[in-house]
Amino acid sequence: MATDTDLRIGIDLGGTNTKYALITADGTILEKGRIATADYPDAASFVDGLHEQLLPLIEKHNAKDKLKGIGIGAPNANFFTGNIEHAVNLKWKDIVPLAKMVSDKFGLKCVLNNDAKVAALGEHTFGVAKNMSDFIMITLGTGVGSGIFVNGSLLYGCKGNAGELGHTVIRHNGRIHWSTGLKGTVESYCSATGIAITAKEMLHNAEIESQLSQYKDDELTSKAVYDCAVNGDELAVSVFKFTGNILGEALANFALFSAPEAIVLFGGVMRAGDMISQPAQQSFEEHLITSYKGQVKLLHSSLDLDDAAILGASRLV
Amino acid sequence: MATDTDLRIGIDLGGTNTKYALITADGTILEKGRIATADYPDAASFVDGLHEQLLPLIEKHNAKDKLKGIGIGAPNANFFTGNIEHAVNLKWKDIVPLAKMVSDKFGLKCVLNNDAKVAALGEHTFGVAKNMSDFIMITLGTGVGSGIFVNGSLLYGCKGNAGELGHTVIRHNGRIHWSTGLKGTVESYCSATGIAITAKEMLHNAEIESQLSQYKDDELTSKAVYDCAVNGDELAVSVFKFTGNILGEALANFALFSAPEAIVLFGGVMRAGDMISQPAQQSFEEHLITSYKGQVKLLHSSLDLDDAAILGASRLV
Repeated sequence: MATDTDLRIGIDLGGTNTKYALITADGTILEKGRIATADYPDAASFVDGLHEQLLPLIEKHNAKDKLKGIGIGAPNANFFTGNIEHAVNLKWKDIVPLAKMVSDKFGLKCVLNNDAKVAALGEHTFGVAKNMSDFIMITLGTGVGSGIFVNGSLLYGCKGNAGELGHTVIRHNGRIHWSTGLKGTVESYCSATGIAITAKEMLHNAEIESQLSQYKDDELTSKAVYDCAVNGDELAVSVFKFTGNILGEALANFALFSAPEAIVLFGGVMRAGDMISQPAQQSFEEHLITSYKGQVKLLHSSLDLDDAAILGASRLV
Repeated sequence: MATDTDLRIGIDLGGTNTKYALITADGTILEKGRIATADYPDAASFVDGLHEQLLPLIEKHNAKDKLKGIGIGAPNANFFTGNIEHAVNLKWKDIVPLAKMVSDKFGLKCVLNNDAKVAALGEHTFGVAKNMSDFIMITLGTGVGSGIFVNGSLLYGCKGNAGELGHTVIRHNGRIHWSTGLKGTVESYCSATGIAITAKEMLHNAEIESQLSQYKDDELTSKAVYDCAVNGDELAVSVFKFTGNILGEALANFALFSAPEAIVLFGGVMRAGDMISQPAQQSFEEHLITSYKGQVKLLHSSLDLDDAAILGASRLV
């Protein structure tokens, strides 16, 4: 049973699963769980489902009077409005006033924010970016997101949607993005989706044998590339090198904007470790002007992949 | 004679000339003048020269007791340290503690800042970005500089040198920059220097006749391209179109970082007006994600090219 007088609920709303946890002020997860987001046809039934799961958990920990509120990180969420706006990976289209819906249902304060911003908040409070006023968090998963800290707080821009670094161009007239239609953007190459596409392209043009050829087209995921690379497959290793090169060049562009103390890399793609971060580091330094060289650290997130977003979300309230 | 009780001296220190003015709090220039920066072999003699010019001006306007201080905008100037650091366009190399030197000589407070940041400050106080909390100023002259406002104030980053947008890559493996050695950066294409290079390249490959061929290689400046374009020369017009296309793509990248209310374009290159800003506007919108399209204004600076930096510098104190 919790003894803290300052508890929060952190929620990480994703296209497939929604993770939630009861969290203390110092970031201790008292208990966590998950529901399948896609099981709920609309936002109202999702909020009901969440309430059904969380109520027993709140009671069990005798947390009712100690709860400061609920923080939610979600794709396409806008901190300014509390709405989820035109999320492509959720069943609920258009504009969903989720913060208000959750607040009304639970009778608690609820604050909503973009998932990458929430991850940055988690890193700033509990991770490698602790006490950094200026850093950039890049989340490399199915997509590429970003949360930017300047002067000690998250950067929102004039409408709340600053930090769409995954959609910046890094290869003029390059690969067409599957959803935005933009050409040569960072996400087209450096997301898990982009890595799988690179692997298929490289395999198609390969003049060397590769374990990657054992996979059917729809099974050739970034995870498969990782497995083959760890197995010493030359082509798979070169997929990560290619990706790291592009990533480093993009990170240099980002650094030259806000001159951060560090760029923190986070997400499933970073499981590839040095295979991606070594070429990224080299390419990063190569694309900086002299006064920036050696001045901006590239760091791996120190947070657990599963917990970063719920921890960050808990800091919203 | 000034009746204000709140006067400032604004100084725009450039590689060729240094402009100075006595300015009121509301931005009225009481009197201005200039000295040739390059005439002074070192910073100490430059400060002496400046003092010699400014003293009679201060006395004439009976301004001694009304002066709040001296603000200076300069290339490679660091607001945090008050130093000019490794300026490539000045005779004085290494690190020059200019703010302290000027303050000691005049017995007045002196604040130094980067020239593009100072121009942004001028635009924010007196120009089209008045009252905007989030905007980006891009200065397109011999080089490409930038001053970025977020949350109502200038963005400095953790070492004072944020906003080096001219050095971001926009064409992978593109044109090599004459001074940084970086490839395909915004400055390589969108500065006056870059435009002259583009003109030479296009002329070399041209299959059409062009007035540009009348110029010797070292006379083919961006000004010459402008003159020919205004005269209806097809090749010269296409030089600005090419430049605008690249500029727009770069501006989209910048917008996706900080989600500003506007991007303000300033500097000699913008004399080309619609010839460059129309293709830039089109390319800009093409490279934005849906939620950004139509949301970020591209504006021309409303400040006089000669006065923006001295006005902005006066706002430093």
